[in-house]
Amino acid sequence: MCLFHISGPHFIFFTPHFRMRYVAAYLLAALSGNNNPSADDLKKIIGSVGIDCEADKITKIIGELKGKNIEELITKGPYLLI
Amino acid sequence: MCLFHISGPHFIFFTPHFRMRYVAAYLLAALSGNNNPSADDLKKIIGSVGIDCEADKITKIIGELKGKNIEELITKGPYLLI
Repeated sequence: MCLFHISGPHFIFFTPHFRMRYVAAYLLAALSGNNNPSADDLKKIIGSVGIDCEADKITKIIGELKGKNIEELITKGPYLLI
Repeated sequence: MCLFHISGPHFIFFTPHFRMRYVAAYLLAALSGNNNPSADDLKKIIGSVGIDCEADKITKIIGELKGKNIEELITKGPYLLI
């Protein structure tokens, strides 16, 4: 079950760990040679830790991170979505 | 197929992206509430991007990262294994 549903939109959207989880997944995809991860790519990665979240949240986060290189993702990633 | 086998141990073990891929996977596990990820946990996460690597490399990397909190993994993670 998605934590968004358990905790409500306000709590989850302003929790740094929530954002950073997506950044970590995006970074892992980029480090594995996928420079343009899709929503399905991120869902699969995040699903590997037993978490299933909503497509619109992933799409928003991809929009924020798209085009960033790996160095930017590491140094600025967690702060890009604040 | 594991990149280790394609590229040889020297190349892969000193490539920052190789280390950081494991750090990103470890971080994703930690951000998802698993403070003590196992080799199987990391293999599953890394497997989600289509990469299959050797257990002894994962064990070594877990040994380096174990006990680090999330903030340490973010700020120092990529440098802990150099």
